[in-house]
Amino acid sequence: MPVKVEIIGLEGFPEIKKGDDIGDLIVSIAEKNGVGIEDGDIIVVKSKIVSKAEGRIVNLNKVNPSPDAMRLAEITGKDPRLVEVILWETIEVVKATRRHLIVKNKQGMVCANAGVDRSNVAGRSDIVILLPEDPDESARKIVEKIRELTGKKVAVIITDTYGRPLRNGQVDMAIGLYGIKPFKDYRGKLDLKGYRLRVKRIAMADALAATSELVTVNGSEGIPVAIIRGLNYEEGEGKASELNMPEDRWLFK
Amino acid sequence: MPVKVEIIGLEGFPEIKKGDDIGDLIVSIAEKNGVGIEDGDIIVVKSKIVSKAEGRIVNLNKVNPSPDAMRLAEITGKDPRLVEVILWETIEVVKATRRHLIVKNKQGMVCANAGVDRSNVAGRSDIVILLPEDPDESARKIVEKIRELTGKKVAVIITDTYGRPLRNGQVDMAIGLYGIKPFKDYRGKLDLKGYRLRVKRIAMADALAATSELVTVNGSEGIPVAIIRGLNYEEGEGKASELNMPEDRWLFK
Repeated sequence: MPVKVEIIGLEGFPEIKKGDDIGDLIVSIAEKNGVGIEDGDIIVVKSKIVSKAEGRIVNLNKVNPSPDAMRLAEITGKDPRLVEVILWETIEVVKATRRHLIVKNKQGMVCANAGVDRSNVAGRSDIVILLPEDPDESARKIVEKIRELTGKKVAVIITDTYGRPLRNGQVDMAIGLYGIKPFKDYRGKLDLKGYRLRVKRIAMADALAATSELVTVNGSEGIPVAIIRGLNYEEGEGKASELNMPEDRWLFK
Repeated sequence: MPVKVEIIGLEGFPEIKKGDDIGDLIVSIAEKNGVGIEDGDIIVVKSKIVSKAEGRIVNLNKVNPSPDAMRLAEITGKDPRLVEVILWETIEVVKATRRHLIVKNKQGMVCANAGVDRSNVAGRSDIVILLPEDPDESARKIVEKIRELTGKKVAVIITDTYGRPLRNGQVDMAIGLYGIKPFKDYRGKLDLKGYRLRVKRIAMADALAATSELVTVNGSEGIPVAIIRGLNYEEGEGKASELNMPEDRWLFK
């Protein structure tokens, strides 16, 4: 018997506005799509719709860049107001080059521009969108709303799209989660022949984020939510920030 | 109408021996699993079974470490014979630390140990397994064998499991492919509102590799092949090595 897992991309999301309830929308749109919500579903949500619902939008015309922002804008060639907003979201500037501003963001993730995104916001180029304030908490709220509305127990992963060091092209990664562990852990386990497994700890939340791209990938808001159904996953506590490698283990600096 | 994609993990692969035909096995095992092969299937194959079929196995007892291997073994704390085999597969040593030997391998991928794996080989700790010599070519042979046996047109991706800079946990990445482009390219395209898309180029082959983990992940040979069915993907020419970022674009060294 083969193992089967299904990836379902939900069609028909409206443009999200501040105050919209994402859990509520997922339930009603899953219903309209004829797939509903089932126990054990993993629901993968693009961070952009969560940010919009949480009002994480800034008008650059109201931003006064600090001296630090001015200096980094000079180095990177970026809009100083945009750099100022990026710094709001930043713990530490990791690398500033002519085209790139790589920072450690408030969730501890090393990424370009702290995930602050200028495109795709209501047709205005002076509007930028920030990542959710606390993506694990955003995921928890969606899980609980779905539980409240349907009685079903699900897990939620919130994703954003990132470039990667050493590897071309972008992939989605997990920036928030609830109801599922970030890793599938094999440390200390042996294979069928009694050997220590080479695979130690699979970044399962990132694998699920990448999986969702098969149905959500289009850079637009066409399909911002995927349901992954039929996977026998490890429930449990965890934070997406566990996926961030601590600085003392970086081999590349 | 939702978009649906299915991930099917094929059960019942035997232990692979040198000379086995992987394309042949996939067809017969897909049949036994009751799912067969369909036009448009993307078949994701763990490199380990390809390596074994191609006889890419080395007995360390027959390896004489070179002075370079001795020196790197001293730095990394690894078996000098293992380091010697790693150097066979290496274009350039990128980083050698107390525990890690990071190299650019013959396919141009920066990874630990050039993908040479000591675990999981027939119960013997002096046996190591190397990556397929030319994984794109291995993928091509599997595609053509499946075409020959079933008349179906499929794509094949060959994967291996890797750690990532800056991010905890391992994921599968594409090291060989045929019949599918490595990227889904949005460069120069605009979103619904006329804005340049932030997402430029999705590493689709890596996303598919990560997707396969949902059914193959276990570090053993339990399920070495996943069929991804129902995805509307871009056929075409390409090489997995296009996923490797050229050194002049590395931000972290």
